[in-house]
Amino acid sequence: MAGSSFGTILKVTTFGESHGPAVGAVLDGFPAGMELSSSDIQVYLDRRRPGKTKIATPRNEADSVEILSGVFDGKTTGTPIGLLIRNTSQHSGDYDNLRDCYRPGHADFGYDAKYGFRDYRGGGRSSGRETTGRVAAGAIAAKFLKELGVRIIGYTSAIGPVKVSSLPGDEGFDEEAVLTTATAMPDSAKDAEARAYLETCMKEKDSSGGEITVVIRGVPAGIGDPVFDKLDARLSAALMSIGAVKAVEIGDGKSVSGTVGSKNNDPFRIAPDGKVITSSNHAGGILGGISTGMDIILRASVKPTPSIFREQETVTREGTDTSLTIKGRHDPVIVPRAAVVAETMCALTILDSMLLNMSAKTENILKFYGRI
Amino acid sequence: MAGSSFGTILKVTTFGESHGPAVGAVLDGFPAGMELSSSDIQVYLDRRRPGKTKIATPRNEADSVEILSGVFDGKTTGTPIGLLIRNTSQHSGDYDNLRDCYRPGHADFGYDAKYGFRDYRGGGRSSGRETTGRVAAGAIAAKFLKELGVRIIGYTSAIGPVKVSSLPGDEGFDEEAVLTTATAMPDSAKDAEARAYLETCMKEKDSSGGEITVVIRGVPAGIGDPVFDKLDARLSAALMSIGAVKAVEIGDGKSVSGTVGSKNNDPFRIAPDGKVITSSNHAGGILGGISTGMDIILRASVKPTPSIFREQETVTREGTDTSLTIKGRHDPVIVPRAAVVAETMCALTILDSMLLNMSAKTENILKFYGRI
Amino acid sequence: MAGSSFGTILKVTTFGESHGPAVGAVLDGFPAGMELSSSDIQVYLDRRRPGKTKIATPRNEADSVEILSGVFDGKTTGTPIGLLIRNTSQHSGDYDNLRDCYRPGHADFGYDAKYGFRDYRGGGRSSGRETTGRVAAGAIAAKFLKELGVRIIGYTSAIGPVKVSSLPGDEGFDEEAVLTTATAMPDSAKDAEARAYLETCMKEKDSSGGEITVVIRGVPAGIGDPVFDKLDARLSAALMSIGAVKAVEIGDGKSVSGTVGSKNNDPFRIAPDGKVITSSNHAGGILGGISTGMDIILRASVKPTPSIFREQETVTREGTDTSLTIKGRHDPVIVPRAAVVAETMCALTILDSMLLNMSAKTENILKFYGRI
Amino acid sequence: MAGSSFGTILKVTTFGESHGPAVGAVLDGFPAGMELSSSDIQVYLDRRRPGKTKIATPRNEADSVEILSGVFDGKTTGTPIGLLIRNTSQHSGDYDNLRDCYRPGHADFGYDAKYGFRDYRGGGRSSGRETTGRVAAGAIAAKFLKELGVRIIGYTSAIGPVKVSSLPGDEGFDEEAVLTTATAMPDSAKDAEARAYLETCMKEKDSSGGEITVVIRGVPAGIGDPVFDKLDARLSAALMSIGAVKAVEIGDGKSVSGTVGSKNNDPFRIAPDGKVITSSNHAGGILGGISTGMDIILRASVKPTPSIFREQETVTREGTDTSLTIKGRHDPVIVPRAAVVAETMCALTILDSMLLNMSAKTENILKFYGRI
Repeated sequence: MAGSSFGTILKVTTFGESHGPAVGAVLDGFPAGMELSSSDIQVYLDRRRPGKTKIATPRNEADSVEILSGVFDGKTTGTPIGLLIRNTSQHSGDYDNLRDCYRPGHADFGYDAKYGFRDYRGGGRSSGRETTGRVAAGAIAAKFLKELGVRIIGYTSAIGPVKVSSLPGDEGFDEEAVLTTATAMPDSAKDAEARAYLETCMKEKDSSGGEITVVIRGVPAGIGDPVFDKLDARLSAALMSIGAVKAVEIGDGKSVSGTVGSKNNDPFRIAPDGKVITSSNHAGGILGGISTGMDIILRASVKPTPSIFREQETVTREGTDTSLTIKGRHDPVIVPRAAVVAETMCALTILDSMLLNMSAKTENILKFYGRI
Repeated sequence: MAGSSFGTILKVTTFGESHGPAVGAVLDGFPAGMELSSSDIQVYLDRRRPGKTKIATPRNEADSVEILSGVFDGKTTGTPIGLLIRNTSQHSGDYDNLRDCYRPGHADFGYDAKYGFRDYRGGGRSSGRETTGRVAAGAIAAKFLKELGVRIIGYTSAIGPVKVSSLPGDEGFDEEAVLTTATAMPDSAKDAEARAYLETCMKEKDSSGGEITVVIRGVPAGIGDPVFDKLDARLSAALMSIGAVKAVEIGDGKSVSGTVGSKNNDPFRIAPDGKVITSSNHAGGILGGISTGMDIILRASVKPTPSIFREQETVTREGTDTSLTIKGRHDPVIVPRAAVVAETMCALTILDSMLLNMSAKTENILKFYGRI
Repeated sequence: MAGSSFGTILKVTTFGESHGPAVGAVLDGFPAGMELSSSDIQVYLDRRRPGKTKIATPRNEADSVEILSGVFDGKTTGTPIGLLIRNTSQHSGDYDNLRDCYRPGHADFGYDAKYGFRDYRGGGRSSGRETTGRVAAGAIAAKFLKELGVRIIGYTSAIGPVKVSSLPGDEGFDEEAVLTTATAMPDSAKDAEARAYLETCMKEKDSSGGEITVVIRGVPAGIGDPVFDKLDARLSAALMSIGAVKAVEIGDGKSVSGTVGSKNNDPFRIAPDGKVITSSNHAGGILGGISTGMDIILRASVKPTPSIFREQETVTREGTDTSLTIKGRHDPVIVPRAAVVAETMCALTILDSMLLNMSAKTENILKFYGRI
Repeated sequence: MAGSSFGTILKVTTFGESHGPAVGAVLDGFPAGMELSSSDIQVYLDRRRPGKTKIATPRNEADSVEILSGVFDGKTTGTPIGLLIRNTSQHSGDYDNLRDCYRPGHADFGYDAKYGFRDYRGGGRSSGRETTGRVAAGAIAAKFLKELGVRIIGYTSAIGPVKVSSLPGDEGFDEEAVLTTATAMPDSAKDAEARAYLETCMKEKDSSGGEITVVIRGVPAGIGDPVFDKLDARLSAALMSIGAVKAVEIGDGKSVSGTVGSKNNDPFRIAPDGKVITSSNHAGGILGGISTGMDIILRASVKPTPSIFREQETVTREGTDTSLTIKGRHDPVIVPRAAVVAETMCALTILDSMLLNMSAKTENILKFYGRI
């Protein structure tokens, strides 16, 4: 339980360091019978892959995934799916000056305090590269969710001051653009604006924060559990477990503190098709930890990349003040590549909760086992 | 795993409904040898207790706790601590009109969708009354944390438009006031302002949102785990698991999306006593999921109480539109009573992480077992 | 995780000491909609209850259970079921001479080594009284298993040299006798023989070992998981977690080491009704950790009650050799009262595994969510 | 939670099928700072490796392990240790005749019932080859246990009628022989006898059962937890999770059912060095689920290899009776290669329990964090 496993029935365990031989994951509890090939996963990895654009680290890795187990005759077998991605483009020499001091805004000091030493090459386990395994595993969950009628879209909703407020389905929200723009923004004008802003940041040897929005559509009402495993609690942990995320919101999020009940409550109504809906969705699709059937809307605020090329004040492992200039290859903003990480973490969480939900009613269990 | 357990080494399991015979908790994994009496717990329960002020539900319960197990000769034994709080002031009749329809903003519809029926009296398991068990268990963790030099303070930092921005230790921050004001605000002027605002809300048959801040002082550097069990991920889940919380922030929180790395990074410095510190604390005491030794600063945004006395649109269980006027006894704002819930949830999380941390280094294990 | 929780989806957590105020359990994850009253549970508790016969401890407790939560309108709600049994017949004074020394064959020394001190009254948490909570929770699982067509029968198959080798359904196996004889043996002649043997033991201030057999009938093929959560691995842990159990066997058990494959393999055959069966059942209903649909047959060997009234050699907490004569009220053999503990532990394990099994196939999940 | 993870703080997750690309494991929670190279692991894998002797399957694999992560500068980093072993000698064609029918004594039918289809090549996930990952991970635990003064020896104590009753340290017990004889027996005369017996079995196209004994020396008193996580319950699950194990015993094991308390109780005594010991060890080193400091002695009864070359009765997937002659490469007895699996499973269990034990006393926690 050193923290590299996630999930209850559907459980992912990741491994790997930025500059070790490989990163990867084991996905256990995935049900049997779904068609799966490495190309299903590769599509997601390519969205996370570095080196594609001017605003991403030039570390250029194919990040091609090998399925080591759990698939037979092109279908999942119900047994653990082992996923391996070799590291191929390490420039470990870039990190030699970090051996004896801590990068501000990074996990270096905490790891040293905890473990007594650390793999200082590219952050080791604390590197964003760790998320490769999650994306690979989450891609598999996302594929099955699609078959279950659940669609998850994660995108960049802000980079510094440049913000997108429209939601999927709204006019002006270009879903295609999420996959094609360098910023993963659903709006090519905003994308251009954000890229211009990032150019400025880079010129000033600085980096930018941003925001990821994830919209989950098609989750039936009744998913999630009471008390500690509320669906929003699990999704919060899922998103906050992504390095650099400093806030997680659901629905109206932070703004609820300033509002009143008569405005924040979503009235229930019967839709023309007889389904229960709410006529607004301030709640973001979850009430009391249980899904309502409305869109689940999450936002994660992401801090600026801590690796900037300015000289920064820091300390040495021996306990003296010093200054540091970071080398290496770093994204000026993490959000465009982190959006798919957020999306796949939500996929893992939602699928796990949907599997758990199958045993909520005695009636369904009796039916499953042919007793009624 | 229907969601009523929390923690890894230190694990709390709660039970109980708003209008059933009792609520309570079992705290397993608490170490042996700490002095404990029910009065240690009662102090915390009293902070959560209803009926004390004009701005809390008049449901008046003593909420006195009985320790059922795990304590012998006044000390914890290392075995599960059973905690029981009898419900004594149920007015179940107030809920008769909810039998067949769903309260907007509440978990009613989700529970029905999940379980096929529900205890409609006061929200059953989804009631805020469920948190009584958490507070009782968390009070025990908080007591031990004090012995470990860790102090947690949870307070109301906003009610509607009335906000407190000072932090514990800042001038004007009155820690005493947190325990004595009706709002649990650390500032009696703000408390008066907030109470006036709440009076208006109540007159308008409305309710208010607000914000809880939790500051955790004295956590050593190195606590927390990489990847999924990052300390901030666990704390987020802990806070988001409290009903009505819709956003969780750490350090600069949501505002990081608009800032740049050179401003957001906290420079490391050596303090006069030789300790590593950061000269600012935008990170809120956690980097890469691991504590830095600086104050951990969390904020939870709480939605307005969904139970308001205005007529609201909703639907019946049979699928027709209707309207509903809620009866019963309800807080115009949840924050003052929820602050201690947030505080105790953080206590459970931090202590668990500190226990897990003991086995992070082989050196410490070899020392513990007398090998070096 | 100090060991008082058991299960994955269906999770029981027990609490309580022999001479504290109460024992009990919280059963979380039990599905919603089953009719449940305390009398369903009481039947099982009465089988475990002391004081009924000459061969059980004369500690006479009603052991009446109170359901604290999780039931509404006579049906389970899907939320945690809190179960409370008050201790009423403590004779704590009987244990004063144990304050400073360790009873041979008991957990006293280990608890002291682990926790630094212990509740010496009746063994505290290590007392057989702890199993009351398990039985209460397991009774609920057993009730639902009956609705699922699964029947579990736990009985005494040996007391000292007196053995019963017939299985339920065999001629001479009297199921009624299990519930009515003092020994819980399914054969009144053997019961008489065993009681005579126990009289001798008691006269000699000695105690007897014995064996419990549990037969689980009606578990469909396909239950259990590969590798670490093999159904037999989980059942073994369930049985070995009962104090005094020193061996667990499945099917032919220990004797398989001396046999050959051609005798041990069970040939598969098609039954007249088209079902796959095996024409023998050496495997005891589980192959590769997965149920075959045949009867699951388990045996647990139980050591003699360590509390005997002879003077015994032991040591003091201060580290000197001494001798000890145990007082108090003790069963000359544990097996008759432990059989129902074994039975209910198996019920918890089997039901949990059956719930987990619902998500094994994508096809079933797609059906459940109405996609195919 | 499809069963491929094991442990609480120290957690191993395995993956891989007999005829897929690879098998392996991820070991999470292993503490930082221990020297580790692949050769530490290889020694253990070589003991499990097939193809070495006439009485093992001629499937000849190097089984060389690659460490994918968690080690830096030759030392463990505290992060997950990824372990990869490529499959290189699959003869999948040998299994073509199993596509449509079930091998008696194997998991084939259960997997099909559970998952709807199965990887029929060599048993897929249910193959003994799955244990490669456990052995690799357990070897790392065993290395650290040695540094902690704990030594585990697993060996063959019976093959069919040929039995070894001496224990490590007894006269005639040749520890060297465990590693050098084909049978892993600690006695070369018995080894010869057993090999002769196996020759007979093989001539008769049959296979033999046997027994593994594991002795764990040097575990301090106080390890293990009350109730469900009793050390013997966890060890039982660990051993029973090895395919083909049908009984697990601790100490006097199955024979306790026939004995009396005055003979079974182990008297406590003070050893010349002041340590508390027991003058006999019927309990096998564990009382009430907690270690006593005496040798922990476990026995696992292993059924005969189900793959025998005689024609056997079985059924087809379509539901008709048929007969089957198994091809491929199979061990006439599993025990010699399974002994190291049992040993390493015990290593994982004991180390995990020792890590958990560090937080049992408040006093130790206060010391660890420098408060007393």
